[in-house]
Amino acid sequence: MPTQLEIAMDAMTRIFHYSCKEGDRLKINNGELKMLLQRHLTEFLSCQKDPELVDKIMQDLDANKDYEVDFNEFVVRVAALTVACNDYFVEQLKKK
Amino acid sequence: MPTQLEIAMDAMTRIFHYSCKEGDRLKINNGELKMLLQRHLTEFLSCQKDPELVDKIMQDLDANKDYEVDFNEFVVRVAALTVACNDYFVEQLKKK
Repeated sequence: MPTQLEIAMDAMTRIFHYSCKEGDRLKINNGELKMLLQRHLTEFLSCQKDPELVDKIMQDLDANKDYEVDFNEFVVRVAALTVACNDYFVEQLKKK
Repeated sequence: MPTQLEIAMDAMTRIFHYSCKEGDRLKINNGELKMLLQRHLTEFLSCQKDPELVDKIMQDLDANKDYEVDFNEFVVRVAALTVACNDYFVEQLKKK
């Protein structure tokens, strides 16, 4: 049985590739990316007050500005997003 | 209800912090890291033929060579490991 960490790694891989509907399955375009974020970060986005957050994350994700995101770009930015969430978690930890 | 991607991000955060037993809860030492890898990458490691893989991953994780791993180093390397697994996945996809 896979562990939680293995399930997490597998989830990132599957979510990305299942979002590649048009063209090849190795990159996602802007429309697919926006759908991915809205579908897979529902709770995270519902807690945010910035209405332009999805657009900001999209711009960050497309590091090389080719209007497409490959798996490398995707996973590195999910990591960055996780680090940002972790900073909040650590702040809460310090308050205890 | 959180999505799969949110669960994955949450799992990475919790696995790291629950592994910080000694000292502060913001870094893990070499012993804690080895335990984390052996406990949370069980299936992944059981498929590998290289007996030194855990040590290699540990060296890679400790990017600044201070014999400790912070959350940033941890998450970035989990991302790198996921990219490596994805490369294998893509190879399989091409064969179909």
